[in-house]
Amino acid sequence: MTYHRNIPALFNPENVAIIGASATTGKIGNVVLANLLEAGFAGGIYPVNPKSETILGCRVVRNIRDLPDSVDLAVICIPPAEVAGAVDELGKKGVKSIVVITAGFKEIGGNGWYLEENVKKLAEKYGIALLGPNCLGLINTGARLNTTFAVGQPARGNIAFFSQSGALCVSILDWAQERSLGFSKFISIGNKAILDESDILAYLAEDPDTRVIIGYVEGVECGQRFLQVAQNVTREKPVIMIKSGKTGAGAKAASSHTGAMAGADQAYEAAFVQTGIMRVSALRDLFNLAQAFSSLSLPAGPNVGVVTNSGGPGIMAADAIELSRLIMAPLSASTVDALKGILPPFAAFYNPVDVIGDAKADRFSGAIDIVLKDEMVHSLLILVSPTARTGVSDVARAIVEVVAKHNKPVFACLMGGPAVREGREILVRAGIPCYDFPEPAIQAIEALNRYREWKVQPMPVEVCYRRNITKAREIIRKAQADGTQEIVEFQAQGLLKAYELPIPDTRLCRTSDEAIAAAKQIGFPVVLKIASPQISHKSDVGGVKVNLKSPEEVQAAFLDITSRAQRQRKDAYIMGCLVQGMVARNAKEVLIGFKRDPQFGPMIIFGLGGIYVEVLRDISCRLAPLSLSDAHDMIREIKSFPLLQGVRGEESVNFTAIEDILLIMSQLSLDFPEIHEAEFNPVLVNSTGAWVADVRVILAPAPDAGTCGLKE
Amino acid sequence: MTYHRNIPALFNPENVAIIGASATTGKIGNVVLANLLEAGFAGGIYPVNPKSETILGCRVVRNIRDLPDSVDLAVICIPPAEVAGAVDELGKKGVKSIVVITAGFKEIGGNGWYLEENVKKLAEKYGIALLGPNCLGLINTGARLNTTFAVGQPARGNIAFFSQSGALCVSILDWAQERSLGFSKFISIGNKAILDESDILAYLAEDPDTRVIIGYVEGVECGQRFLQVAQNVTREKPVIMIKSGKTGAGAKAASSHTGAMAGADQAYEAAFVQTGIMRVSALRDLFNLAQAFSSLSLPAGPNVGVVTNSGGPGIMAADAIELSRLIMAPLSASTVDALKGILPPFAAFYNPVDVIGDAKADRFSGAIDIVLKDEMVHSLLILVSPTARTGVSDVARAIVEVVAKHNKPVFACLMGGPAVREGREILVRAGIPCYDFPEPAIQAIEALNRYREWKVQPMPVEVCYRRNITKAREIIRKAQADGTQEIVEFQAQGLLKAYELPIPDTRLCRTSDEAIAAAKQIGFPVVLKIASPQISHKSDVGGVKVNLKSPEEVQAAFLDITSRAQRQRKDAYIMGCLVQGMVARNAKEVLIGFKRDPQFGPMIIFGLGGIYVEVLRDISCRLAPLSLSDAHDMIREIKSFPLLQGVRGEESVNFTAIEDILLIMSQLSLDFPEIHEAEFNPVLVNSTGAWVADVRVILAPAPDAGTCGLKE
Repeated sequence: MTYHRNIPALFNPENVAIIGASATTGKIGNVVLANLLEAGFAGGIYPVNPKSETILGCRVVRNIRDLPDSVDLAVICIPPAEVAGAVDELGKKGVKSIVVITAGFKEIGGNGWYLEENVKKLAEKYGIALLGPNCLGLINTGARLNTTFAVGQPARGNIAFFSQSGALCVSILDWAQERSLGFSKFISIGNKAILDESDILAYLAEDPDTRVIIGYVEGVECGQRFLQVAQNVTREKPVIMIKSGKTGAGAKAASSHTGAMAGADQAYEAAFVQTGIMRVSALRDLFNLAQAFSSLSLPAGPNVGVVTNSGGPGIMAADAIELSRLIMAPLSASTVDALKGILPPFAAFYNPVDVIGDAKADRFSGAIDIVLKDEMVHSLLILVSPTARTGVSDVARAIVEVVAKHNKPVFACLMGGPAVREGREILVRAGIPCYDFPEPAIQAIEALNRYREWKVQPMPVEVCYRRNITKAREIIRKAQADGTQEIVEFQAQGLLKAYELPIPDTRLCRTSDEAIAAAKQIGFPVVLKIASPQISHKSDVGGVKVNLKSPEEVQAAFLDITSRAQRQRKDAYIMGCLVQGMVARNAKEVLIGFKRDPQFGPMIIFGLGGIYVEVLRDISCRLAPLSLSDAHDMIREIKSFPLLQGVRGEESVNFTAIEDILLIMSQLSLDFPEIHEAEFNPVLVNSTGAWVADVRVILAPAPDAGTCGLKE
Repeated sequence: MTYHRNIPALFNPENVAIIGASATTGKIGNVVLANLLEAGFAGGIYPVNPKSETILGCRVVRNIRDLPDSVDLAVICIPPAEVAGAVDELGKKGVKSIVVITAGFKEIGGNGWYLEENVKKLAEKYGIALLGPNCLGLINTGARLNTTFAVGQPARGNIAFFSQSGALCVSILDWAQERSLGFSKFISIGNKAILDESDILAYLAEDPDTRVIIGYVEGVECGQRFLQVAQNVTREKPVIMIKSGKTGAGAKAASSHTGAMAGADQAYEAAFVQTGIMRVSALRDLFNLAQAFSSLSLPAGPNVGVVTNSGGPGIMAADAIELSRLIMAPLSASTVDALKGILPPFAAFYNPVDVIGDAKADRFSGAIDIVLKDEMVHSLLILVSPTARTGVSDVARAIVEVVAKHNKPVFACLMGGPAVREGREILVRAGIPCYDFPEPAIQAIEALNRYREWKVQPMPVEVCYRRNITKAREIIRKAQADGTQEIVEFQAQGLLKAYELPIPDTRLCRTSDEAIAAAKQIGFPVVLKIASPQISHKSDVGGVKVNLKSPEEVQAAFLDITSRAQRQRKDAYIMGCLVQGMVARNAKEVLIGFKRDPQFGPMIIFGLGGIYVEVLRDISCRLAPLSLSDAHDMIREIKSFPLLQGVRGEESVNFTAIEDILLIMSQLSLDFPEIHEAEFNPVLVNSTGAWVADVRVILAPAPDAGTCGLKE
């Protein structure tokens, strides 16, 4: 994976300069220096300040020019208007990386926006890996590097955290301290003038100190690059993220059916699904999962065993497991027999195994050992209520001992307060994640299992279809030259043909006589549709008649359709009617479309036609390029999927034919950035094949790249 | 509300005897006595033990006969086989209430079941309010009464907790201690031989020390009584409950469509909705909500203001609010102006109001005061990240001061660990609930607002419809006499007529000539349906033909239907065909049914006919008796509701007509417990009315009361 070539200097500098270091306690330039000293950074530390002599015992450098050449990281905390000048000087000195803590840039709009653009251009000019501006700084515990102005030093650990919100970073550091969570790297990415989440992810993927990556973002800088990077990172290590601003973004009004149904958050959702990033919506879930990934190996499968000393929580765990994608492990007969040998007669020998309230450490230990030996058990959850006889700390020690004999992930839930505190510490120290309640434990087990599923799946297969790009381009250029934003159906059909899409035989007829002649050639029955560049929703004006069986019916339909359209849409130029063969017997209607998301580029949309999409909003989304498995999953993800499989003895539709059209749609969307959105609706599908029966193509007002170039 | 007449003695006894008190430390009979003494119980305490002289300084009574007559509560902790004898003796002494802590009864099956039946019969004979067996005991902090064998004394507070799981009680007590949560009553209900959740709820509703009731159950003892009691309790005070075993129960295979779609958990879900009990699925949610209800008044409406010093958490709060039924309060222009007067220029003046990271107590205080003054703000959430300059404890004190000036519920979220600990204590002491993260705070605000909505809604209106019960009974008796379990359609139509349900004109015809004659009388077009007691899913055998427009079509359809049916179902007795008028033009099909739930009695089911119910499982459920608003809500709750409202310019269907049929179905289900389940499917509905076009009625194998008598 590629990332900015100077990121290593940012995380592992030899020497650090602090531009704007201050002798005044409480000032940011003072706190940053104090933190760096307190962290025990071993390299050179150079406070830069035009007035002071020494700060916190460090000799001060008067200006940037006087810095030694070996400085490879500078932390900037001077007023915003002076930042660009400092970056320029640092660039000239050959400084490789910069953290701009100073706020007052893009986030305040107006002049701040221009200030940031200057900083960005200079950083680009000198090839500087610049973090921020408007950030808290960064921490690399392995290098004893802390350039933040937050209070306290985080413990060393294998969790890497990055966040777009600086104040949130402060909370998280403080919060982690209470729970003895340790970090490998801690990065506040701020305004992302140069380095963004993709750079950070790519770097962390290769960082040997990091086992799990967690992040908070409000938006992704460059969607297409993020997709590529993230997909590779998740093959290496788990990534868990919060993307906030779910709902606000959805409020954007969009211009067409497809648009109205796919809000921006759906693009993020698709991006997370396709890259294998685990998305959570609450902060506590972020750390809940991080804790599990940081200490446990992945389970070999979805089966969970539960050992409890209390019936109620056992039932609640079983509920949570059945409502997740996990499975209550069916215990083998020999396991049940072995349990009967050591547990009292009124215990429960099936999953959940209830060792009963009077169990002490030995009984817990025996039952856990037996259950972990069962091949059908892939992971284990142990629930302990501190009953009068439990001896929680003894139980915890016994758990640690017996778990060490097996190679399966084990989760504990010690339910209580003071009575279980010591037990919890014993478990966490031994790398057994410990929770207050069953539900978060199940959530963590499910995440581990999902990540296993993700890692074992084959790399996505990309399919390339033959198409006549030259012909397609001609049609689009002509429409652009004509100044139309929507490609009329008959031209759009040319586009379909260029992509070798299956379409019913269709002819544009200007008179009812032409229509009758065409119908005879195509063969009855036929469909008639209004043809007008201005009418995109044909049914709304009574512009579609199906199953016309004779010349008389065709004639009547032609006159009816055209006269209605003329009456109802006085603005519309009526070209005539399209006559179309009714190829698909017993066909169902599906919709395949795409919409160009401002962040991620083309988002492909699938759903059953008509009310399923329009009223029940039953759609699935993926970002282009679609892989074969994306197309496969999209079809199966909608709630109305059983209707495509066939109900009441119907035949299943041809799924391969739908997959082909989804993949061709993906290809079309990438071939022509000048197409803003497209919709095949309906696509008729039966057991033998699928046909695109109607199509709308909307062009972008001006050519639009829709993607951003990959960095370096 | 009525409850067992001796419950007051259970919670507020004058004198307590402990049957099986023990001098051995750690034994239950010892711990219970120690707890009672430690709690500081002021009444007489009588340990009963045949061998000892004194235990823990109390003079021992040798046997029950020697107890003074003034003992009104006995706690039993002797072996299970001896319990019935003790209850008998205590009954003879006139003891009013008993807690049976001893386990080894119904929960272990076999002989335990008989032991419990004996205990139950004796308690009933003497009118004793008996709690348990197999329970932890009970605590009434107001009376300094603790009869449990759990470790530690809970703090006094206004939360009442009851639980069917004893071990869970232990966890909860320990857990609450850590969070300084106080209880008014704490009740482990165990096997519920005599007292169940309904008794406890009814008593707690009147308890002046209890402000909010929380409970954990695995099942409800007597569903119909629970419905009545709970509905009254929630008018008085909020009730929050966990019902576990959601998924296991759903596994029961059921006998018909309707049955297969409505698992037992749906009955519980309906019960909670109809009684206004707030159901949560995780323990932490239970206490999260309890904390809010215990200290705050209800908000006047759904609008939430948010004041934050950190952008990220503000966005996350806004997301959570928009995804809930709450509303981000739109701030009035004067509020925004006032905020602009006191906040720095780069602050956010709209909701969420961001006072920015460098805000200290005064800026928080000023913004909170302004936002709370806004009439559009019904409740407020304050988010604090401990940035370097925040001074969290000062902020907390400022919040307490400014919130006291207003009369609106305020929630805080101090995000962090050690840095916010003192601040959290300051807030909680002042009755401001304080959370780690925004999401649980939003969940609590939503619950408060839902409860407000519940309290202000009018009492349910019950509607009674005219019907001919005698005629209906005749039809059912005849079917029972014939030994048929399913009432054939034509007889079932008699049932519909007795309930004055709107049905299309329908005639049973044995020959095609009869069918033609009937069609002429009814008027074309008509529908033909196979008539056979053995064929309940007519479409599966091609047994339905619609829109028959002529005598010829009727004749062909008759022959086709009957011959197909004979070929495909050799077991079936073919009576002929039903000829039915097609009354409803542009009609949609809905399904209205009921199924008898073993706990709660009849559960009414509503959905759109065909695939919407069968494939998409889009149904709504309520328990009988339905109120007018239940019927109203059921129709609007299904996802496909917009289809009934009409899409693409269609007319809306007649909702009142559907409500009538739902209410009549409810009445039918209550009038005849011998009907096991019934289904009107399809009910045809258009803008003018609704007609029951087909019906299935299944009788119970033997008369089945389906309800349990109300106690006392």
